[in-house]
Amino acid sequence: MTQKIQEPLFGVAVIAGVGLIGGSLALGLRQRGLASRVIGYDASPQALEEALALGVIDEVRATPGEWLRSADLVVLAAPVKALLPLARELAPWLSPQATVTDVGSVKMSIAAEMERLGVRQFVPGHPMAGSERGGVQNASAALLENAVWVLAPTETTPLTALSRVRTLVERLGAAPVVMPPEAHDQLVATISHLPYLASLALTHMVARDERLSLLAAGGFRDLTRVASGDPRMSRDMVVENREALREATRRFIRQLEHLADTLDHPDDLLAAATEGKRTRDSLPVVKRSLLPPKFDLVVATPDRPNQLGIITNALGQAGVNIKDIEVLSVREQGGALRLGLETLDDVTRAGELLRELGYETRGRG
Amino acid sequence: MTQKIQEPLFGVAVIAGVGLIGGSLALGLRQRGLASRVIGYDASPQALEEALALGVIDEVRATPGEWLRSADLVVLAAPVKALLPLARELAPWLSPQATVTDVGSVKMSIAAEMERLGVRQFVPGHPMAGSERGGVQNASAALLENAVWVLAPTETTPLTALSRVRTLVERLGAAPVVMPPEAHDQLVATISHLPYLASLALTHMVARDERLSLLAAGGFRDLTRVASGDPRMSRDMVVENREALREATRRFIRQLEHLADTLDHPDDLLAAATEGKRTRDSLPVVKRSLLPPKFDLVVATPDRPNQLGIITNALGQAGVNIKDIEVLSVREQGGALRLGLETLDDVTRAGELLRELGYETRGRG
Repeated sequence: MTQKIQEPLFGVAVIAGVGLIGGSLALGLRQRGLASRVIGYDASPQALEEALALGVIDEVRATPGEWLRSADLVVLAAPVKALLPLARELAPWLSPQATVTDVGSVKMSIAAEMERLGVRQFVPGHPMAGSERGGVQNASAALLENAVWVLAPTETTPLTALSRVRTLVERLGAAPVVMPPEAHDQLVATISHLPYLASLALTHMVARDERLSLLAAGGFRDLTRVASGDPRMSRDMVVENREALREATRRFIRQLEHLADTLDHPDDLLAAATEGKRTRDSLPVVKRSLLPPKFDLVVATPDRPNQLGIITNALGQAGVNIKDIEVLSVREQGGALRLGLETLDDVTRAGELLRELGYETRGRG
Repeated sequence: MTQKIQEPLFGVAVIAGVGLIGGSLALGLRQRGLASRVIGYDASPQALEEALALGVIDEVRATPGEWLRSADLVVLAAPVKALLPLARELAPWLSPQATVTDVGSVKMSIAAEMERLGVRQFVPGHPMAGSERGGVQNASAALLENAVWVLAPTETTPLTALSRVRTLVERLGAAPVVMPPEAHDQLVATISHLPYLASLALTHMVARDERLSLLAAGGFRDLTRVASGDPRMSRDMVVENREALREATRRFIRQLEHLADTLDHPDDLLAAATEGKRTRDSLPVVKRSLLPPKFDLVVATPDRPNQLGIITNALGQAGVNIKDIEVLSVREQGGALRLGLETLDDVTRAGELLRELGYETRGRG
């Protein structure tokens, strides 16, 4: 069967910021033939060198210039703190026809800046994928597959540009979800940034009393787990979204005050508790985390004995180290297991191994 | 070797409320010969019948009366909501010399009531042990072993009474920790009741927007896990401690507002984030949960490959079902695994099995 070679979606693609996400996007473009040429642009010569050596990009560039004029697609993939300066650096050199997008975790600020800079074909984007380990050496096209990828057009984003980026996202194997930039920022504020602040606040409450930390366990550990994230990354993330986060925090505080009031109205509190349980129990079990997740592999486990033993034993004997493990919703007809592995290689190997044993798996490998 | 038979600590012991904790305490008294006779007192005839049949108690009583006068030890072990009425019911019949204690999760209210009722030798207590499954059929002396057991004497609690209860707790195999009732209630408010309210508030924030629940994962799931607890039990628990909980909520809100302010001062926020990580990372890993834990077994895992596979496989083949599993602080020199099992029997069997394989275990079996 002759495989029909599709015309690439884009001519020259420039990935500005060749880290984990930028690098993965570049690999996706190259492996799926979505661009005729992929140029890497980065402040770090080492990153560029490594990206070239790994075959992530075709060419390296270290300073902006006329060469940018021929870019058909430009992806801003620097860390969130460096995004606006990067936009200002590149904007003067871009062709008015270039499709431009970004991958930052906050959308309103970059959208406003691009509008101010007159970059017309800009589509704010946010692929909800990631890893505890950054860097181009951990990049993989598979990282973006099955990721929810938010596209956040403003009211002036041309629909043709939105359409081009949407197609790109789909062809990379991700799932586009379209919503306004404000809605996106409020969303990530609520489900990612606010939980981080709450977690931090809780840890601070036990920091000065040893009795508290001695006795805290179980539920308290659950609620403070995200406070263990990298402080600098976490700080940059929430500061960039401070407006939406302040608003989300206000709403959260109002909820708390309301619940504190119901302490005098036990029936109302029971209703709230019942509602909360219902909502929590209905959260879908297999989702991408907005916070840096590990390399996860999810395995469907049939309702037969010793599934956990069989699976972990098989991986252990193959030298695949399991960092953490979560039993997901054990039901009568079977359940699922989430395995946190160390590298993308492990995810690939583990997936192959388990599928050979007849298991259904789902992951980034 | 002749085993020296110790004189029992107490004469007649009355367990008022023969549920999981009361029943476990009764079993501990009987199995360790700590009381000459154990009488069960309960509103439910079925509970009494079952307790008698299971050998948890020697005798049943359903109504208060003169028989209470001979009680040397009286333990109030009814659900937290029924504790004060129970105290009022029994108080008129107690001998002034009787040592009285309770096992409720909140201490100030029962301490105040007992003082009002003139029960002099009352020592407020709170064994931090439990299970998702209540009822005397799940009771076991082992449930209380290694539990942290708070004793919360007031300023008028006689030191002789405190000493007697402290000895009781130690002889039951638990670890007494002494602090004032107010301190105890503030503590459980901070590390148990407030996290519950925060968890509930977070779930309410995503309940009305499907996009949020679609995208919430990982960290958000961690922070809302305790909202899945039994609504009625959770409600009763927090309502009983409402004063301390309101205070803890106010402090939490102040922390949140402070953190929201630092969004304009990124260096301060970085310091807070770094502090939070340090505190969270230093939480001890093997602790009892104040929220209903499962039947846990903790296994120390040496730094050798495939420990997870070996352990889970061994248990699986022995028919021990693992409900959930948590990898605790993997360090270079080895780590630990927390296994959530289904019954106390399983904990006992699993412990024996794994110790035979050379593992160190720690649990209630």
